[in-house]
Amino acid sequence: MQKLYIVKIGGNVIDDEVQLEKFLKDFSHLKENKILVHGGGKVATEISRGLGIEAQMVEGRRITDAETLKIVTMVYGGLINKKIVSKLQSYECNAIGLTGADANLLLAEKRPVKNGMDYGFVGDVKKVHPGPLIHFLSMGLTPVIAPLTHNGEGSMLNTNADTVASSLAVGLSANFSVELIYCFELNGVLENFEDKNSVIPSMNEEKYQELKQAGIISKGMVPKMDNSFDAIREGVSAVVICHADDLTDIVTHKNIKGTTLKSDG
Amino acid sequence: MQKLYIVKIGGNVIDDEVQLEKFLKDFSHLKENKILVHGGGKVATEISRGLGIEAQMVEGRRITDAETLKIVTMVYGGLINKKIVSKLQSYECNAIGLTGADANLLLAEKRPVKNGMDYGFVGDVKKVHPGPLIHFLSMGLTPVIAPLTHNGEGSMLNTNADTVASSLAVGLSANFSVELIYCFELNGVLENFEDKNSVIPSMNEEKYQELKQAGIISKGMVPKMDNSFDAIREGVSAVVICHADDLTDIVTHKNIKGTTLKSDG
Repeated sequence: MQKLYIVKIGGNVIDDEVQLEKFLKDFSHLKENKILVHGGGKVATEISRGLGIEAQMVEGRRITDAETLKIVTMVYGGLINKKIVSKLQSYECNAIGLTGADANLLLAEKRPVKNGMDYGFVGDVKKVHPGPLIHFLSMGLTPVIAPLTHNGEGSMLNTNADTVASSLAVGLSANFSVELIYCFELNGVLENFEDKNSVIPSMNEEKYQELKQAGIISKGMVPKMDNSFDAIREGVSAVVICHADDLTDIVTHKNIKGTTLKSDG
Repeated sequence: MQKLYIVKIGGNVIDDEVQLEKFLKDFSHLKENKILVHGGGKVATEISRGLGIEAQMVEGRRITDAETLKIVTMVYGGLINKKIVSKLQSYECNAIGLTGADANLLLAEKRPVKNGMDYGFVGDVKKVHPGPLIHFLSMGLTPVIAPLTHNGEGSMLNTNADTVASSLAVGLSANFSVELIYCFELNGVLENFEDKNSVIPSMNEEKYQELKQAGIISKGMVPKMDNSFDAIREGVSAVVICHADDLTDIVTHKNIKGTTLKSDG
């Protein structure tokens, strides 16, 4: 099977022009099939504030009311997505920017209200349609995916970028040997958050559960890890969590960096 | 040759929820190959104002400074494009929203400063790459194109939607029998602007030049007409200018409405 890299780039890198440019240059040099999934960054919050809309957050997730849905559709699907696409084009990478609504890639349903908690227009992925992406890759195109889905009934939905990346990785694992790479501003999963070099080089699910119970892996890292082990169980070859600067090293295996997640088997 | 409809929908219809919904339903029912190009509408101006940026207009064209470029990239490429795509998906039309940067469809150059007049980040189309669109159509996808291009050097550019539509029509005319349909809020090209029913049913370029010199065709209609006759000279089969409500009638030939532009030959 052909190799496919699905690379997710987080919000903090997107907010930093210099880091983003370096990352996109590195990404554009990957020779294999590749898909980029990007997060949101602070721009959506800044623009909301500029328009007098205060972003509400619960457990690290944005509450998406109707106005916020408009903002994230604009900022993620328009501003950030097209900024990345036009930059990649300038590096001779034939990028195509998409959301989950385009070509019906990611059908989602509005997250149900639970214990009185309504996330608003947040979508949980229900179905991935990998067909168009397989076509685009065979045409030499590089899909760049914004963290937006749709409900099939005319509404966009806001979906966590980590989840978009892992859903796509699983959805494409029947056709490709998929390696999912989460790039962010840390060197990997850390044993000690105070020591940026205390990277855990590899982990299986058993070890993850131990570290979670010990409180070593917590907060924002938990959904990322849960997503990753789900993806591995469902056919993704490998998941790496690493610093955005280390993408080239990881792909070329010049240097083992970041945290590699492995199946229990 | 297979038939291809390139339909452009103008800003006034986009601003009207009810009209837009009817139009998109009609469009989704077209059986032939089809591409939709959409304009901007007033939303960009409203959001600019909300953020304290005043839109500058010269000769009916927006001056695109760096901040305005961000706004139009967000609003045209994100908000409006994905609203249309998600609506079309709900009508079982497998839409894919794109800008000229995506798949390098429309390469443009920043309009040169002339007589001290700098339009800012406005792009004049330099090269159309029809290949990806031909692929997408063969996959059963319906491209929905926002009026944005890129310069190949990492920057998006703002391009008039009528020009995007006619450039695509010309670029695809070697592969399809292209009919270009401009839909807007009037019944066609009017002989007398005060009488909304004084539609000129058809026109060749000679008659257009007469009407232009007589001042009957003026203002915003002039670039649309110039674009149209350029397109016909360069291989587009027919151009129709009509009311958004009349799309189905025009395509099914149940009723001849609007203004049809013909070659001189």
